[in-house]
Amino acid sequence: MVDELMFETKVIRDNIHGNITINYQIIWDLINTPEMQRLRRIHQLGGTFMVFPSAEHSRFTHSLGVYHLVNRIINEVIKEEISNYDKIVALCAGLLHDIGHGPYSHAFEDVFNTDHENMSQRIICEDSNINKVLNKYDSHLASNVAAVINHTHSNKLLIQLISSQVDADRMDYLLRDATNCGVSYGHFDLERLLRSMVVKDNIIVFKESGVHALEDYIFARYHMYWQVYLHQTANSYEIILNKLLRRVKELYENNYSFKHDINLLIPFLKNEIINIEDYLLLDESILIYYFKNFINEEDYILKELSYCFINRKLFKALDISSEQEGLNLINKIVDDTIKKNYFFEILQAKSSFYKYYGEINSQSINIITKDNKIEELANASNLVEAIVNSAKDKIELKLYYHQDYRSVLNE
Amino acid sequence: MVDELMFETKVIRDNIHGNITINYQIIWDLINTPEMQRLRRIHQLGGTFMVFPSAEHSRFTHSLGVYHLVNRIINEVIKEEISNYDKIVALCAGLLHDIGHGPYSHAFEDVFNTDHENMSQRIICEDSNINKVLNKYDSHLASNVAAVINHTHSNKLLIQLISSQVDADRMDYLLRDATNCGVSYGHFDLERLLRSMVVKDNIIVFKESGVHALEDYIFARYHMYWQVYLHQTANSYEIILNKLLRRVKELYENNYSFKHDINLLIPFLKNEIINIEDYLLLDESILIYYFKNFINEEDYILKELSYCFINRKLFKALDISSEQEGLNLINKIVDDTIKKNYFFEILQAKSSFYKYYGEINSQSINIITKDNKIEELANASNLVEAIVNSAKDKIELKLYYHQDYRSVLNE
Amino acid sequence: MVDELMFETKVIRDNIHGNITINYQIIWDLINTPEMQRLRRIHQLGGTFMVFPSAEHSRFTHSLGVYHLVNRIINEVIKEEISNYDKIVALCAGLLHDIGHGPYSHAFEDVFNTDHENMSQRIICEDSNINKVLNKYDSHLASNVAAVINHTHSNKLLIQLISSQVDADRMDYLLRDATNCGVSYGHFDLERLLRSMVVKDNIIVFKESGVHALEDYIFARYHMYWQVYLHQTANSYEIILNKLLRRVKELYENNYSFKHDINLLIPFLKNEIINIEDYLLLDESILIYYFKNFINEEDYILKELSYCFINRKLFKALDISSEQEGLNLINKIVDDTIKKNYFFEILQAKSSFYKYYGEINSQSINIITKDNKIEELANASNLVEAIVNSAKDKIELKLYYHQDYRSVLNE
Amino acid sequence: MVDELMFETKVIRDNIHGNITINYQIIWDLINTPEMQRLRRIHQLGGTFMVFPSAEHSRFTHSLGVYHLVNRIINEVIKEEISNYDKIVALCAGLLHDIGHGPYSHAFEDVFNTDHENMSQRIICEDSNINKVLNKYDSHLASNVAAVINHTHSNKLLIQLISSQVDADRMDYLLRDATNCGVSYGHFDLERLLRSMVVKDNIIVFKESGVHALEDYIFARYHMYWQVYLHQTANSYEIILNKLLRRVKELYENNYSFKHDINLLIPFLKNEIINIEDYLLLDESILIYYFKNFINEEDYILKELSYCFINRKLFKALDISSEQEGLNLINKIVDDTIKKNYFFEILQAKSSFYKYYGEINSQSINIITKDNKIEELANASNLVEAIVNSAKDKIELKLYYHQDYRSVLNE
Repeated sequence: MVDELMFETKVIRDNIHGNITINYQIIWDLINTPEMQRLRRIHQLGGTFMVFPSAEHSRFTHSLGVYHLVNRIINEVIKEEISNYDKIVALCAGLLHDIGHGPYSHAFEDVFNTDHENMSQRIICEDSNINKVLNKYDSHLASNVAAVINHTHSNKLLIQLISSQVDADRMDYLLRDATNCGVSYGHFDLERLLRSMVVKDNIIVFKESGVHALEDYIFARYHMYWQVYLHQTANSYEIILNKLLRRVKELYENNYSFKHDINLLIPFLKNEIINIEDYLLLDESILIYYFKNFINEEDYILKELSYCFINRKLFKALDISSEQEGLNLINKIVDDTIKKNYFFEILQAKSSFYKYYGEINSQSINIITKDNKIEELANASNLVEAIVNSAKDKIELKLYYHQDYRSVLNE
Repeated sequence: MVDELMFETKVIRDNIHGNITINYQIIWDLINTPEMQRLRRIHQLGGTFMVFPSAEHSRFTHSLGVYHLVNRIINEVIKEEISNYDKIVALCAGLLHDIGHGPYSHAFEDVFNTDHENMSQRIICEDSNINKVLNKYDSHLASNVAAVINHTHSNKLLIQLISSQVDADRMDYLLRDATNCGVSYGHFDLERLLRSMVVKDNIIVFKESGVHALEDYIFARYHMYWQVYLHQTANSYEIILNKLLRRVKELYENNYSFKHDINLLIPFLKNEIINIEDYLLLDESILIYYFKNFINEEDYILKELSYCFINRKLFKALDISSEQEGLNLINKIVDDTIKKNYFFEILQAKSSFYKYYGEINSQSINIITKDNKIEELANASNLVEAIVNSAKDKIELKLYYHQDYRSVLNE
Repeated sequence: MVDELMFETKVIRDNIHGNITINYQIIWDLINTPEMQRLRRIHQLGGTFMVFPSAEHSRFTHSLGVYHLVNRIINEVIKEEISNYDKIVALCAGLLHDIGHGPYSHAFEDVFNTDHENMSQRIICEDSNINKVLNKYDSHLASNVAAVINHTHSNKLLIQLISSQVDADRMDYLLRDATNCGVSYGHFDLERLLRSMVVKDNIIVFKESGVHALEDYIFARYHMYWQVYLHQTANSYEIILNKLLRRVKELYENNYSFKHDINLLIPFLKNEIINIEDYLLLDESILIYYFKNFINEEDYILKELSYCFINRKLFKALDISSEQEGLNLINKIVDDTIKKNYFFEILQAKSSFYKYYGEINSQSINIITKDNKIEELANASNLVEAIVNSAKDKIELKLYYHQDYRSVLNE
Repeated sequence: MVDELMFETKVIRDNIHGNITINYQIIWDLINTPEMQRLRRIHQLGGTFMVFPSAEHSRFTHSLGVYHLVNRIINEVIKEEISNYDKIVALCAGLLHDIGHGPYSHAFEDVFNTDHENMSQRIICEDSNINKVLNKYDSHLASNVAAVINHTHSNKLLIQLISSQVDADRMDYLLRDATNCGVSYGHFDLERLLRSMVVKDNIIVFKESGVHALEDYIFARYHMYWQVYLHQTANSYEIILNKLLRRVKELYENNYSFKHDINLLIPFLKNEIINIEDYLLLDESILIYYFKNFINEEDYILKELSYCFINRKLFKALDISSEQEGLNLINKIVDDTIKKNYFFEILQAKSSFYKYYGEINSQSINIITKDNKIEELANASNLVEAIVNSAKDKIELKLYYHQDYRSVLNE
């Protein structure tokens, strides 16, 4: 029975939600799989804690938080409009939605062509402890949970809970990231948002009285994007990591002989399909272990990038007005092609704090008016419309460069 | 000596700022005048606590808070760029800036043509305990303090501290009102705002890095206006009060014979200049005492409006698209001119959460860019520009009416 | 039907509990009676806001808070173990438990021999708007609600909700007073206390795992007693008030001719039974109005005490080791018997933050151990036992005196 | 010049203290050493985040917090009573006081006979980046900072700041641990404690008015000990770790052939003096990497303990009344000596939330009375005396055992 209750309800303390309650045995069993425990060793915000030191929280606590918010939305908003089976599917999907994330996913996926959503699906459906737990309760459960995470489930309400613009995922990470970063601007009124939600035609829409709470939420997202998620120093850290992994790949492909073993990375360096067992062996500890070894390698680029990454010798950034301006600058001050590739990067920050669809669907933020019409938030709130329009003009193009070029570039 | 220190520093607990420290004897002496203590009997938000019950804070605690923020800005931002004498002037002005407020000022001033700024000046400069305290320390102090409150002081920095768009007054009431109302949207990052302030050419401007904190502050003001200060039920309460006072005046002028004495109101009913002694006798207690007596009066309008006010039988509101539509509605459902005047009101909500001046002055919110140029916030932040533009379109025109007409108007 | 639902659920914002939800029409009707609205004009902590200025909250918001906590305990702890009828009785009792309080109850009751619990019962059962509302829903409701407030109801669980050592009343006022005073020490973990509660043999007991949360709660009470409730300056204010009312009574009995009318006090000055209509006319506004008039009276004592009260010229205090020492001091420095009576008071502070009963009842704080035995908190926690024992030794005996005697007493 | 100011003051956001300000270049240089950055990879609470998942904070953020509190105490309490040189010494000592901590220090030190205080001293004084930074500013600085950390510095005030019962270290970790664990009971009134401090005869003592704030602090410590620091599941995790390291050592000494290299542990397995370079290579990442490899080892004990540690298969616990009872139980249910050693542990919890010295020194908590006498807190507060006495009786003796023995032990 998928909704088997625990012998005794578990209550987990959390610095964001206070108490997280576990009623169902299946949730407890899933939490205790090695795959879930692995998420403790992956920071929620990757390298952002190099800028906001107290942002040390992991994908594990975030996953518990998403489970908790799915639970609250079901209990407080959806109530009877969902079957018990689908409720369990939603709770599992909330808990497992990030299970396929690897260490520093962004950079890692970019270099090694992995995809965390695809890995999540595979970890849930192929041979894993997660899969075993799900199968123990019901043979269709794994495919149902995976379908929610991959947006293919027939019940759109379940998908909306986990991935839409005001879903359990975004609501948890916004609060969690803001609180742990120690910033004041990412907070919004969770209780009021929840109270504004109603189910209409099997999607969650917001009562008109909740528009201000949504404006507040959009504003919180706006701020978190520009001040945390797109923070220049965090970007710099990400760029170094990307180049470092890229260098490892290049060297491996050129048969470079590494001083220390890099066994756990080998499967990713070969152009083969990764098996999930190998994938799950990776976490941030392993990468850091390798990077620290790389500091003693012969290859200057690998050595230097590893040193930069481990010891926070971060790339600096310069505002530029066009990509061409950036390229010209690089060409002017450096000849060596390898250095051009590895010590410079042009990056444009893009935020996605609100998306206008022009139609009502499970991804759009929808308002139900007093006379029962449904419209998108940007149509109901000229504030949101204004913020969205104002953000369109906001482009931040920057040239990131190795610190050694600071004096040259500041001339 | 105006800056005589207290024998022992006083620390006052406050639910907003934690600890408010009193170092100077003059501040302590001023706090203990009957004029300041009177502010304890005047709600900061007038009748708003009829809508947000826990908004029970007074102009007294707000005044302490303004004093505290003036003190912080001087100590943390202005530092040496102000003389000790002017510092004391600023602290006194912060503490006393609302000293001329009467009970339910808005409605009261509207009906009786009093003006709290003018009264503040008179209380400070004419014969009062406040004036005695100020004179005890320095014979020019009273006129200096009054000049700050009336915006005529030669040192514009002092004026800016007490009355500009990001001054100690607004910062305190925004936080205090939001916290006491129990709403989540009026909060902003006080610490960060303070840290962004610098003095430039003797006015306070904000560092470019503080733009996000200012956006947050403007957004908080925007929300407080639309959700608290312009709340329909609070407006309704204000309208009843206004009409009630107006009725008293009309009856008095028509030689109506009141059952109970209304002695303390008499000076206001005669068209003479009020002396400050009479003015200071009034507080909310007195008005409520009178209103409760009025419930037993003969005059139906006076009786009914008093009952509505005391027992929260509030006017309802209806959206209308033009004043003419409102007038037509009134004319359609009621014949009696007196009832038209006293049981109906057409009101348009206007917020003033940000004001664009088009020039740099001590009232505009000014940003100093990295290359040392000064520009107004709306020019530095396209978000603020967008919010301001969006608010221009926002007009809320409403017809407020006595509950008895509910069924007629809902037909 | 007593449990008639509202057409639309009302949500009231509160600075302590966030949102207070009103589902039942009867609760909304009760809130809107003049008797309940009167509580807005009575401070929860009497004159304590003269010491902690931001403690400006009223018995009205506290009453809403108690209603809210009764609601939460029923929904989250008691659940099905109470009938719907008794649930409504409990909610009404929570909301109305303080309805009989007058302005500055302590002093008032002491001088005029009124009793707020008795008045509550009468307001609920005799001819009042409250009574009308209750009767409209059910003819036995008033007597049931009164029985809960007077501890005579047959269902002990209902009584325990409103008046025991960890009841909705104490939990609300502890949090509300601490938050509004701006102190840090009165807070406790409400969520954890609620989660520790279980119903056993129709009384609420606490799981053993909740002992630490209870220790925390007792500690919070301990601190609030010694630092807020028994604060010397608050005591001083109370003493002045007491003497002031006593003087009014004495003068009245001696046929003193008051300059201004004191009509609303007359019923209390005659030694007759008060009718509730007269009782309900009083609030703090009225008393302050009278006291301000008294400042202009002939009688020196009345005049002076009124001035002290209104303008915060508070009595000072001196530690003394015995009542005799205090009496000797008074006799040494003053001859006039009237002054002895009205300008001096000897007071011993007593706190009652935990009471040990030596048996299990609905008043004692009861722990249910893992092996299902029930014992009192002081037996289950040697920390609480220790605190209680330590407090026994704590005696604070003080002589309070009019400021004019300061120099004499400090010699 | 040791007190060289930074070109631009750095402000670091922190989820506990809000803003941490860095004024001195030397502090910024120290923060950016690899030795300090290494602390990011060591959890402040070791394995406690296995019980309180959100307790994911590191020794790095704690070290910043201690620096911050030392800075506040100097600026707000000590002020002019310390030389600028000693101020820098104190700030450095605050920042570096945990620099010698290794991963999971408790267990690690127990097994490998290392000592983090000794390692701190060596890292500061021997050849390290930390030492280079300190020497760059002043040749005596390293020895001075080390002397503070090792309690041998001649200025006792400096030692007291970093290690006494109410020092910057304890105050930071109490707030930080409580907040990150998401518990409500470890909080105390930091602002009030700071305001109570005064310097007297070159030690910090507390004003009598601060006794309640200290009682609150002691109570917070008491709760954190019994509910977090001595939490059974955290103990269990620690025990497994201890046994796991012990097994590695035993196997190594018996020339067991490990499948994967354990290079970085070798220096600790040989009974030689560790050089600091080897010591600093270790962090939690490395140990976890090794433990994950150990899951594939031949040796059953090593394999199993590693599995338990990595996958949260924790030891269970049983209350026992004496060590002998525990030993008897073990002997009764298991024969194999190795299993007896590695799958069982008898542990007695001891808290040390307050220490009474019976004399005034820089370690005791000292109260200065109004008549200028100094006495220990337990003498000034009968509440603290009571708590201390009550805790003496509190003994928790437990038998921890591998989960496989659960059914046998529950018979």
